[in-house]
Amino acid sequence: MAGGVSTPALVAAVGSAGALGFLAAGYRDPDGLRADIREVRAQSAAPFGVNVFVPADLTDATDRSEPTEPARLAEPAWLGGYRAALAAEERRYGVSLGTPPAIDTDHWDEKLALLAEERVPVVSFTFGCPPGAVVDRLHAAGSCVVGTVTSGREARVCVDAGLDALCVQGPEAGGHRGSFPPRPPAGEVGLLPLLALVRDEVDVDLIAAGGLMDGASVAAVLAAGACAAQLGTAFLGTPESGAHALHKAALVDPAFPGTTVTTAFTGRPARYLVNRFIETLDALAPPADARPPAYPAVHHLTLPIRRASAAAGDPDAMTLFAGQGHRLARDLPAARLVEVLAAEAAQAAAVMTRRLAPPADA
Amino acid sequence: MAGGVSTPALVAAVGSAGALGFLAAGYRDPDGLRADIREVRAQSAAPFGVNVFVPADLTDATDRSEPTEPARLAEPAWLGGYRAALAAEERRYGVSLGTPPAIDTDHWDEKLALLAEERVPVVSFTFGCPPGAVVDRLHAAGSCVVGTVTSGREARVCVDAGLDALCVQGPEAGGHRGSFPPRPPAGEVGLLPLLALVRDEVDVDLIAAGGLMDGASVAAVLAAGACAAQLGTAFLGTPESGAHALHKAALVDPAFPGTTVTTAFTGRPARYLVNRFIETLDALAPPADARPPAYPAVHHLTLPIRRASAAAGDPDAMTLFAGQGHRLARDLPAARLVEVLAAEAAQAAAVMTRRLAPPADA
Repeated sequence: MAGGVSTPALVAAVGSAGALGFLAAGYRDPDGLRADIREVRAQSAAPFGVNVFVPADLTDATDRSEPTEPARLAEPAWLGGYRAALAAEERRYGVSLGTPPAIDTDHWDEKLALLAEERVPVVSFTFGCPPGAVVDRLHAAGSCVVGTVTSGREARVCVDAGLDALCVQGPEAGGHRGSFPPRPPAGEVGLLPLLALVRDEVDVDLIAAGGLMDGASVAAVLAAGACAAQLGTAFLGTPESGAHALHKAALVDPAFPGTTVTTAFTGRPARYLVNRFIETLDALAPPADARPPAYPAVHHLTLPIRRASAAAGDPDAMTLFAGQGHRLARDLPAARLVEVLAAEAAQAAAVMTRRLAPPADA
Repeated sequence: MAGGVSTPALVAAVGSAGALGFLAAGYRDPDGLRADIREVRAQSAAPFGVNVFVPADLTDATDRSEPTEPARLAEPAWLGGYRAALAAEERRYGVSLGTPPAIDTDHWDEKLALLAEERVPVVSFTFGCPPGAVVDRLHAAGSCVVGTVTSGREARVCVDAGLDALCVQGPEAGGHRGSFPPRPPAGEVGLLPLLALVRDEVDVDLIAAGGLMDGASVAAVLAAGACAAQLGTAFLGTPESGAHALHKAALVDPAFPGTTVTTAFTGRPARYLVNRFIETLDALAPPADARPPAYPAVHHLTLPIRRASAAAGDPDAMTLFAGQGHRLARDLPAARLVEVLAAEAAQAAAVMTRRLAPPADA
């Protein structure tokens, strides 16, 4: 989960309960990330992880994420049309669109230096495979390095780069698709066959993610060959989550018809509850394979609209990230939710073992 | 699997091996179906099932499936355009498009009478929920009655109609989506969260289907709350399967980039390996929510093209039904595949149980 939702309190609570919490480095500035890491350590002695977004263009990793004047941009073909499409949203919320920086590496170099310095136990990456030098540096700092993959091909790239484990993200997942490089969401393989295909491609520890809301689903992915299950949406509704109160309420609100994947908010395909913004803008948004990539430019464009929507207590233009099982989100303290998930998983395992046993007359 | 692929030999082989095989009534004429049922019984004493397609319009269930003159049809708006789009395929294969009957209930009344008369152990339905009178009649004949569902809402409808168990079909599945009534494939929930949502909605035995190719996946859905796993594509490659040799070969041929869901062949969304026909016609095909429904009219239209393609040994216009895990299909005798799946599931269950056990120092 990108910065803000996965709070230090949430990470510390699930860690102390015996699970592994992740802080999000995405969209966080380095000082904020360092403060979060230290806050987790102040609250819990348990291991934890940090998730980092891999910038689209690592060949120029010099961090120049300060905003630049629009005149300095080489304007992508899709930009003018999408700006025009967003004009009604500017008027509705009384804000101006944000200004995409010329290059945004999301403070890649600074964050990696910080993670190595802080000797973070687990560092995971999303949107691409980190370069070998980065993997080596994190290994030297004692970190376990995890990649996020959505296909057997991506899994092969990560294993060849020396990563220690892979998070296999099914299309059921809420939030951004971790695919690298950006591509259309068509042809996405569901989590169970994806796990089977990745197991067939590589021999490395797999963490399963996407649509897992209860302990039975956790047990299921462990049976399917994962060594762990990763849950995001299931923890969005906990009191420790930094999700907006409207976001938490929307997860279980039958007025929302379900989720969809769109590039409308950030330029990258991500799964959200369907709201008015998505219904209006999905068809007008740049495609997932736009060149130059629409992410993170569209993220910067729409940010003032999303902030104004949240400030107005109006979920119609908020990013209501949600996995497909969102209706099953539970409003339990995070540590209690970890306990409940573990108990449900043990129960599911016992039932499964009985179902697989040969009949008594065999 | 619709008629032809699931042979009596396949059903008898998996039944004798301890699994439950299904004959397909879809597209079969009643005499052929009766012969198939008797052939299964001649080859094996094991229980078996028959799957039946629920016609779109059960309010006029009088069977009038004989072809009628095009002049007698009230032509749907989409028909002319799609006929024109298919003209190049007619020329390529030297055939004329088929003639959709005015009403096609696929011999519904005759087949139900036959199934009751033959006292088939399990009767499952796809594309809708059978009327209560049908359920009662099959119950009176001693049959277990199973519905196919793709959402919690459909599950509720089936349970209220008195069905005994539900096949929960994830979007990973090959072949037709079982959804009722026809609707666009957008918003389909993956098998694992779908199982959780259906379990939350109804309390009835669930059979999980969609993308399951190995024993670990079977164990996974049992852990996720299913009482059984249903595999189609996994058995397509067996020698007993009636799939065309080109279809069997295509499942594991890396030249096929993967699967997609399209209405282009039958008018109903179904998942196939992507071939030239789909690449050419998907964008021109009637939408899944066309009114009047495009299924089964498009099935009848394209049938001569598909037959000519298969007869020519050309997979470009064949219906290469395939679930998302198709690359993992194994060319094993069906009974042996059942044994392998059971052994893999037991192994996966043992690994999962170890993973869920508290650490030794806890």
